Amino acid sequence: MKRLMTYAAGACLAAGLALPGVAGAQDGETTTIGVSIPAATHGWTGGVNFHAQEAIDSLEETYPNLDFVLATAGDPGKQVSDVEDMMATRDIDALVILPFESDPLTGPVKRVADAGKFVTVVDRGLAQEGIEDLYVAGDNTAFGRVAGEYFKERMPDGGKIVVLRGIPTTIDNERVEAFQAAIEGSGVEIVGMEHGDWNRDKAFEVMQDFLSKNAEIDAVWASDDDMALGAIEAINQSGREADMWVLGGAGMKQMIERVKSGDAMVPADVTYPPAMIATAIRLTAARFVSNAPMEGRFIIDSVLVTPENADQYYYPDSPF
Amino acid sequence: MKRLMTYAAGACLAAGLALPGVAGAQDGETTTIGVSIPAATHGWTGGVNFHAQEAIDSLEETYPNLDFVLATAGDPGKQVSDVEDMMATRDIDALVILPFESDPLTGPVKRVADAGKFVTVVDRGLAQEGIEDLYVAGDNTAFGRVAGEYFKERMPDGGKIVVLRGIPTTIDNERVEAFQAAIEGSGVEIVGMEHGDWNRDKAFEVMQDFLSKNAEIDAVWASDDDMALGAIEAINQSGREADMWVLGGAGMKQMIERVKSGDAMVPADVTYPPAMIATAIRLTAARFVSNAPMEGRFIIDSVLVTPENADQYYYPDSPF
Repeated sequence: MKRLMTYAAGACLAAGLALPGVAGAQDGETTTIGVSIPAATHGWTGGVNFHAQEAIDSLEETYPNLDFVLATAGDPGKQVSDVEDMMATRDIDALVILPFESDPLTGPVKRVADAGKFVTVVDRGLAQEGIEDLYVAGDNTAFGRVAGEYFKERMPDGGKIVVLRGIPTTIDNERVEAFQAAIEGSGVEIVGMEHGDWNRDKAFEVMQDFLSKNAEIDAVWASDDDMALGAIEAINQSGREADMWVLGGAGMKQMIERVKSGDAMVPADVTYPPAMIATAIRLTAARFVSNAPMEGRFIIDSVLVTPENADQYYYPDSPF
Repeated sequence: MKRLMTYAAGACLAAGLALPGVAGAQDGETTTIGVSIPAATHGWTGGVNFHAQEAIDSLEETYPNLDFVLATAGDPGKQVSDVEDMMATRDIDALVILPFESDPLTGPVKRVADAGKFVTVVDRGLAQEGIEDLYVAGDNTAFGRVAGEYFKERMPDGGKIVVLRGIPTTIDNERVEAFQAAIEGSGVEIVGMEHGDWNRDKAFEVMQDFLSKNAEIDAVWASDDDMALGAIEAINQSGREADMWVLGGAGMKQMIERVKSGDAMVPADVTYPPAMIATAIRLTAARFVSNAPMEGRFIIDSVLVTPENADQYYYPDSPF
């Protein structure tokens, strides 16, 4: 984390101090927070867009002296321009950014930090350590472990499963290693494991291959909700939907609906919530409306969603 | 972290959803959050008490349907009773606890979690993993590293320093190891290192001993503000106050005042903020007034405080 902070936020903080809960309202001073996220090009980023807007609307209503600038980018170049614009024309006091890619955004975000602004980085780290004040991210190890523990608990007498992996990345390795560690010593046996690249169509093909090669499959760890949908389609087409269940991951609305409804094929899900952008925005806002320290590293847990708690992870208005 | 959450918070959450920013205000449903902390028996816990009360006052004003129960305990037995009372008579929806000691509190807090309440543990972990939903704590490695980097930067030509350590604990080891790693390869030479047990009087004696044995001391890493005060007293009595400076740690008001005023003997401080209780209370509250995920692990950074940013870490109304 950044060692020295010499910025002008003291004034805003002092305002929050003087009248707790009504940040700066008494002196008319406004804190402007820039939020830069990828455009809603696929399911998860669609959720990010929804939850960012919801958090901003809610915070602007609660704290009239907080002002937000939201920009969405379809590519890293656009995101770099967005960040530069926020500095040049909006004089932001803080930046919350979910970087499209690490490398091209590292320099521009460092310049924001060097200018004394509070910087919050979400989900994907920058290429250089110590730039941001606050880092908010999911927990890939927990994501795999929670899934593995669910298989172990649900299959006390063991069983044969297949695993669809994501794009070969550190993230995918962390998830799969934690999953394997969690099922170790149980009777849960992985009879097939292939990369489905977090892609619905690719997962459909991989699952068709698994089905043709394995007469017995008791369950599928699809490790992602998009891949789960592809796998379920392949299972349905094979007519073997009564034989196996599927665990995805992320917390997609369609999947949470199936969990809520008690669908036997989708008995649970594991979160890797796009709503983490709302966590990051709220913590950054709290930095300006309170004395509470918000510099640090917040790793958001992956939670098992079952019919009992699914309501809590169901966002009816979200696209994801 | 807890795997299954089956509690009744869904209603509160849904209320927050329907009217963002005014949590549950429209249906009159109140969320009650219990806060259990050690009594203000010494400086740091004095700060914890101050910041807990400030966060509660601020949040109750902002969110009329949030209700808090604050209890302070002088010993672990009283804290166990406090927690049991909150469950029995106040029907809390969530508990924020800074445990007096890990072992005696683990069972009682687990019963709160098992009853489906949201549990936030602050600073000192419980004796069993996975009970709490949210863990908020300081960063002992950063505390030592930031201090070491400051010595290295401030003494480019090297120098002789003495180090006062805390009570022999994992916390102290983590801090000192990170400090030593940070000054490695620099000309900063540790000519004496002894345990001052985070105690002002003990630190005074240890520093007297250092002074009598070392004709040249250029700086002191007191590693704690209470120990820094003891060390400074010994230095002043020796008449060598012009020869050396002292770096403490925690963010005690007296020390931040000296940093602010440009005191040559106290050029900086490193935070280990008692205000982390406010962070924990605000994140727990956000769990009930928003959709933002708050389950996870938030490690609060230790920040270098210099005359440039000292205002931001100065709480004039706090006892600490």
